[in-house]
Parts: sequence; C-alpha cells; structure tokens
Amino acid sequence: MFLAHDQDLVNNGLMSNKPTPSLRSDYAHLSTITTRWMDNDIYGHVNNVTYYSYFDTAVNRYLIDAGVLDIHGGEVIGLVIETHCNYFAPLAFPRDVEAAIRVAHIGRSSVRYEIGLFEAGQEHAAACGHFVHVYVDRQTRRPTALPEAFVRALQQLQVPTA
Amino acid sequence: MFLAHDQDLVNNGLMSNKPTPSLRSDYAHLSTITTRWMDNDIYGHVNNVTYYSYFDTAVNRYLIDAGVLDIHGGEVIGLVIETHCNYFAPLAFPRDVEAAIRVAHIGRSSVRYEIGLFEAGQEHAAACGHFVHVYVDRQTRRPTALPEAFVRALQQLQVPTA
Amino acid sequence: MFLAHDQDLVNNGLMSNKPTPSLRSDYAHLSTITTRWMDNDIYGHVNNVTYYSYFDTAVNRYLIDAGVLDIHGGEVIGLVIETHCNYFAPLAFPRDVEAAIRVAHIGRSSVRYEIGLFEAGQEHAAACGHFVHVYVDRQTRRPTALPEAFVRALQQLQVPTA
Amino acid sequence: MFLAHDQDLVNNGLMSNKPTPSLRSDYAHLSTITTRWMDNDIYGHVNNVTYYSYFDTAVNRYLIDAGVLDIHGGEVIGLVIETHCNYFAPLAFPRDVEAAIRVAHIGRSSVRYEIGLFEAGQEHAAACGHFVHVYVDRQTRRPTALPEAFVRALQQLQVPTA
Repeated sequence: MFLAHDQDLVNNGLMSNKPTPSLRSDYAHLSTITTRWMDNDIYGHVNNVTYYSYFDTAVNRYLIDAGVLDIHGGEVIGLVIETHCNYFAPLAFPRDVEAAIRVAHIGRSSVRYEIGLFEAGQEHAAACGHFVHVYVDRQTRRPTALPEAFVRALQQLQVPTA
Repeated sequence: MFLAHDQDLVNNGLMSNKPTPSLRSDYAHLSTITTRWMDNDIYGHVNNVTYYSYFDTAVNRYLIDAGVLDIHGGEVIGLVIETHCNYFAPLAFPRDVEAAIRVAHIGRSSVRYEIGLFEAGQEHAAACGHFVHVYVDRQTRRPTALPEAFVRALQQLQVPTA
Repeated sequence: MFLAHDQDLVNNGLMSNKPTPSLRSDYAHLSTITTRWMDNDIYGHVNNVTYYSYFDTAVNRYLIDAGVLDIHGGEVIGLVIETHCNYFAPLAFPRDVEAAIRVAHIGRSSVRYEIGLFEAGQEHAAACGHFVHVYVDRQTRRPTALPEAFVRALQQLQVPTA
Repeated sequence: MFLAHDQDLVNNGLMSNKPTPSLRSDYAHLSTITTRWMDNDIYGHVNNVTYYSYFDTAVNRYLIDAGVLDIHGGEVIGLVIETHCNYFAPLAFPRDVEAAIRVAHIGRSSVRYEIGLFEAGQEHAAACGHFVHVYVDRQTRRPTALPEAFVRALQQLQVPTA
C-alpha cells in the first residue's frame, strides 16, 4: 500500500538514491518484535516513527543477549549520531514484525548497523534502514575503543555481501 | 555531549556525508514542542526515536493549522517513504524543543520536508533531518496531485537558500 | 525492587484498597509481548505508562484474533472510560512480558477487562490492572449492544473465580 | 464523544464509583502540554495510554522546576505504585492539553497526586486521574523520608477542598 520509491523522486532531488527492499538472506540475525495497539496511527498502519523503535530494540537486544552491553552499569554506552529509513510497505498491529540486522562497518569506536523489517511470510522488507552508533564512556561521554568481546559480537553480524 | 560527526566516519564509509548543524534562520517556520518524561531513555536524554515524533508533529501541525490537511476525513493523506536524522547534541526532558521546518522540494504528489530541532537558547540545531511524504488518495492509496491550496501552504515553507 | 503496597497507604487515604499481586491461574488467556528499548525510562525499568500499552495490546489482539474486532472498518469500536493499575515489581527491557487477561463483567455495551503482567518465570504478577470499554457505533459514537459473536468471545475470557 | 460514566456501570460492578469531571479551580497548578501526531490512535483521538504520559510529565516537570527533583543524579527517585484515570471527553492532536495538578495526601515517603486534563477553552476536565509515588533511595530502592524542601514544594500543590 506504500509506494515503490520512484526514480522520479531521485531525479527531482527529493531523495538521494533509489532504495530497493532487501531480503532476509541479506542479514545475519533475525528476531521477532510484537506490535502494539499504539503503533498504528490514525491511518491504520504502524507510524513511521515506531520503525526506529524496532531498530533500537533489535540491535540492543542482540548486544545484551550476547553479554556485551550492560545498559544499567556498563562503562560503555552507545550514542546514536545518524538514523535513516526507507519505507516500502505498511506494517500493522496486530501482526508480528521480524527484524533482521547486520553490521556494515566496524570502526574504532563506531558501528554502522543496517536493519530490515519484514512482515511474517513476506519475502521483501517492508522497510530498510541504518543507524550509526558511537560508543562512549558513560561518565565522560568521550568516544572509547570498542572492547574486544564487543567487536567479536559485532563480527558475527557481518555478512559477506553487506 | 553527543559527538561532532567526524570526517573519519565518512572516510570509513559509516556515513554518506558529513552533516553540520543548521541555524534557525535556515528554516521558514518555528514551533515549540514540550518534552515528556518518557522521552528520556535510560541514558537520561531524549531517545533518538522520539526526534522523529517531533518531525511528524511539527509538519502535520503546520499543515492542519494552515487548513490544508484534514486527518480525520480528508481525501488526501501523506505516506512517509523516507526519513533521516543526524544528531549533534542531546535534548532532554523537561526542556522545551523548538522545531524549525522548511520545504526543500515540491513534486506533483510528493514533498521533501527538512527539519531542525533546537534547544531553547541554543544557536545550532541539536538535530537535523528530513522526511519525504507522498500524498495519496485515502481510499485507493494511489499518488494524487497536491491540491492548489496545499501547494500554496508548502510554498510558504520554502526558503531561498534551502 | 518496587514496593509492596503498604497497609499504611490505605489507612492514610493514599490508596483506596490494598492490592495484592495475582497469579497466572487467575486469568483466562495468556500472550507474550516483547519489550522495547524505549520502554525503559531514566530509572532503568519499564515506565508506568507503558504498562497500559501492554493492556491495550493484549486485549485488542485477542479480540482481533478471535475475529470479532475489525479496527479498520468495523461498525463497533471500543472507547476506554476507566483504567487502573497497581505496580508490584519492575519489568525491564529486554525481557519479555506475559500478559494475562480475563473478563470480569459483560454489560449490554460495556466490558470490564482485568489484566496481569508477568515477567517470564515469575509466579506473581508484576502489575495488575483493569480497563472498562464501552462499545459504540463508529459513526454516531453512541453505545451499541455487543454483537453475539463478540459476547461469545468475551465469555471465553471469564474465569470462575474472577 | 466519549461517554458520560453511567450509574449503571457502577450498579453492575464494572466501576467502583461514578466519577465526575473536575474543574480547573479544583487544582493548584496548571501547565500546557503540546500533543503529537503519534498521540492519536486509529480512532482519531489521543490513545488512553498517552494520558498517563501527560500525568507523569506535568508532575515531574513541576518537581524539577521547583528544584526538588534531580532525575539524573538525585538521591531520591519516585516509584509509581498505583495509577488511575477516568475519561470523559476525547483529546486530539493538534490541540494543546492543559494539565492541572494537586497533591491530595503527603505521607512520610509517599504522595498522592491528582491530575485533571483539559482541552483549551473547555470548562470540564476531559480526564481525571491520580497516581501514587513512593520515594526511595536511588541505590537501595528502599522508601526514604521526603526531604523538607520536597515537602514544601508538595504543600504548594495542596488545595483546601481536594
């Protein structure tokens, strides 16, 4: 019901490139997110803002489950400096969303995560996006080198073709 | 407390370009948004997701106040196909946010809105972003030419230098 | 980490009664809700507001899955006229929440739902609450008798001891 | 558009009492909250859950502005143990909400806040509710006596007739 991203939008300068929906196989890790009543806005589908809460949730849940992120007392916290999303098809409560993630780049203190959101049973992503985390010391908020265990957890999210 | 966007991040492919914070004078319209307790996440600042709810709110409030968007029964609704945000400095409850907006491109049925979020008293934007709306018929969800009055309201959001 | 509800609070008029946490067996239907990064507030646990989004989600998901609520085009919609929650223990992202529901009363056009939220593996509810829905005609917003199929779906949520 | 709370609902046990909408003059402090696009749910009005974020925001903003609550580093934090709301009339984006608050009871470590939400220009509250905070030590999470300055700030929220 959402629109294919028209080449005209790129030609006319509205968008910087013409995105295409990805596949589950383009990602390294998949998890399920249950939608909520409040996710649907007045137009009856998940509001564009909420997609980013799925991004946040999928990535941080992976890191916590991998034992490398302690959000309550850990010395390193991730600050988001860039987020982006393209929307190809609607998502809607009450259907579950599958969030697929991969890591595209690992820097000294920064990481680029790429995410695809899929409706159950659908081959193509309903939305694709990325966010860039810079990891900083909790107290000083200065960039800090990623711990080794953290890097290993990230490497497991890299895919050959990403 | 957030990070300047380092040129290294661009060089290393983590980000597509090096964004810089805009000024209020770069925009056409300014409105105030009150922050909420829930906007602050566990790290004590407004969560990156919530910035997009400020984007949505500032633009749609302008369109409704201008009398060109009827979200309950209007024939035309806006679907978001792309959103983007760069974060330069933290925002936090309970301080108000000033949302500045402009229109960068007006197509036949699509619009690119650009938004800057400012903390009261601060010269540079805490965050800058954009979103692209495609306007569709409420029933068919097919793109529809923007009504004249709508275009006029959008033109008032255009700025010479944008 | 939250507090037992002290009898003193009741004696001093702060609370109307002394609530006690319920058990899963006190309810008729159980479903899982995944938590989100944003659910945690600055104090590191799910914000009290978000519990109500779990209530809404659990009940409406049941009604939609049962085929008796069509949120997009159905003639009958539910308006909430009262909500209440008591909090006994914290919930926190990334752990899943189990939402248990029952129906306490079925009126001509109104229903009282009671909900318990459990952390996985915990015997006692982390929070208990209720909400009262009045079902109205989508157009006139006047109360309307509950359709038969709807009542049957509700009856399956009644428990002997509730 | 919401319903008057019918005495039948009380008689039939769906609700514990028959609430009536309050007036601005029933409260001690008033502040404005801007609504957001996302606040409206699929039925076109502010979702019942979001009312509680207005409660949280109005009370905590008062306490922070009064200089008695430091959410980042203060020794005392407030845990919510009970919340309640009755809904009399709809609220909707983009109209502002006025949140009126008062303190009904001050205990050694607990407080009962009562809140009325008003649409601009309306005499009667669109919703009335309360929440009970127990103040605890940030580290031990054990109840702690309210500091003197805190009590003084609370006393300014007491009204003769509340």
